[in-house]
Amino acid sequence: VTLRLYDLAGAEEERRFSPYCWRVRMALAHKELPVETVPWRFTEKEAIAASGQTRVPVLVDGDRWIADSWNIACWLEDRYPDGPSLFGGAAGRALSRLISHWSDTALVGGMFPLVAADVWVHVHEKDRAYFRKSREERLGATLEASLEQRTSRLPLFQRSLAPLRATLELQPYLGGDTPLYADYAAFGPFQWARCISPLALLAPDDPVARWRERMLAAFGGLARAAPGYEP
Amino acid sequence: VTLRLYDLAGAEEERRFSPYCWRVRMALAHKELPVETVPWRFTEKEAIAASGQTRVPVLVDGDRWIADSWNIACWLEDRYPDGPSLFGGAAGRALSRLISHWSDTALVGGMFPLVAADVWVHVHEKDRAYFRKSREERLGATLEASLEQRTSRLPLFQRSLAPLRATLELQPYLGGDTPLYADYAAFGPFQWARCISPLALLAPDDPVARWRERMLAAFGGLARAAPGYEP
Repeated sequence: VTLRLYDLAGAEEERRFSPYCWRVRMALAHKELPVETVPWRFTEKEAIAASGQTRVPVLVDGDRWIADSWNIACWLEDRYPDGPSLFGGAAGRALSRLISHWSDTALVGGMFPLVAADVWVHVHEKDRAYFRKSREERLGATLEASLEQRTSRLPLFQRSLAPLRATLELQPYLGGDTPLYADYAAFGPFQWARCISPLALLAPDDPVARWRERMLAAFGGLARAAPGYEP
Repeated sequence: VTLRLYDLAGAEEERRFSPYCWRVRMALAHKELPVETVPWRFTEKEAIAASGQTRVPVLVDGDRWIADSWNIACWLEDRYPDGPSLFGGAAGRALSRLISHWSDTALVGGMFPLVAADVWVHVHEKDRAYFRKSREERLGATLEASLEQRTSRLPLFQRSLAPLRATLELQPYLGGDTPLYADYAAFGPFQWARCISPLALLAPDDPVARWRERMLAAFGGLARAAPGYEP
């Protein structure tokens, strides 16, 4: 069976920048499963209609369509039990859920006003009106205004990483000595930002930045090889 | 061996209100280990000097003195492997670390300005000057000023619980079908607030409030039986 992943792409087909799709890309690599990615744009709702909803990631495994990064991770864990575990057992799976939700809120939510204007630069021409309208509603401001405020907002975002930083000062990965799905859940947002924004989110000596380096290097540099900005 | 726990007490000896001591009380009950608690006040630094530091919880197990709620949880897990596991394995232990740090920041940190003035009411007379000075420095305001602002701050705190709420809408405990140390790490702050403040932190229909009810009922109502306010 060839797995197929609908993967958010920018104007350049190779620029893949969804934080949620990156979670799945990393989880597939962890499970040692090859995947064929299909570039997808925000407005191509019909292409994934068989999934029963309108957003990526969508994984197609044989005749099954699975949507949502968490659901896909659970699918991979259960369907491919012989590959390395993404959760390290039932307790690890349950605990990863809070970490995934925390990542949605604190990382995707925290980065969103910092990088939204940069996303707009990279989205496909046909997605730009959709993106601007939906994101400016969420921001409560124009993309341009969000860009002007980001320097003053960055220290607050960096402080909000305190729990992640405190953990990564004590162990190399959220999963312990080796990465687990919780690491991919938290890394996806950093890779999203890296793919579309030149903004330096982290000081180089931040333990979070050192963990990000390890994640960029994982699986033969899978995430590092993707078109984006340094680091 | 009788385990002994130095446990922060208020003016009334039976009012035990440290969020970190409550984590340990719950973890000991989970491990089915009896404990003798020793009431301790903020300024009694000499009593726990053998632990090498100045704060509770401090657990005394034979000739070993162990400080810090996380270290104590790991000690109990490793020293008493026959009792129910607090982490559910190595992955669960690693993942619990982020949840514990998140709880320190988002829950203890988020509740602190809401309940600090109520703590002052309950601390022992001999601790009051110490408590007011150290906490007003942390608040950047007087205790009385923090009390006046709390109604306006409460909605922000409730919104900050989004990751916890989203998780507990999907599973009864952070640990899954049964509680694990991560649940005690997050419950400790709620029990702290309950022990010293009449403030209703949560709407009754909040999934977080329903989880808190389950935690109050655990171990024969251990936490519910402690002197405090409803719920």
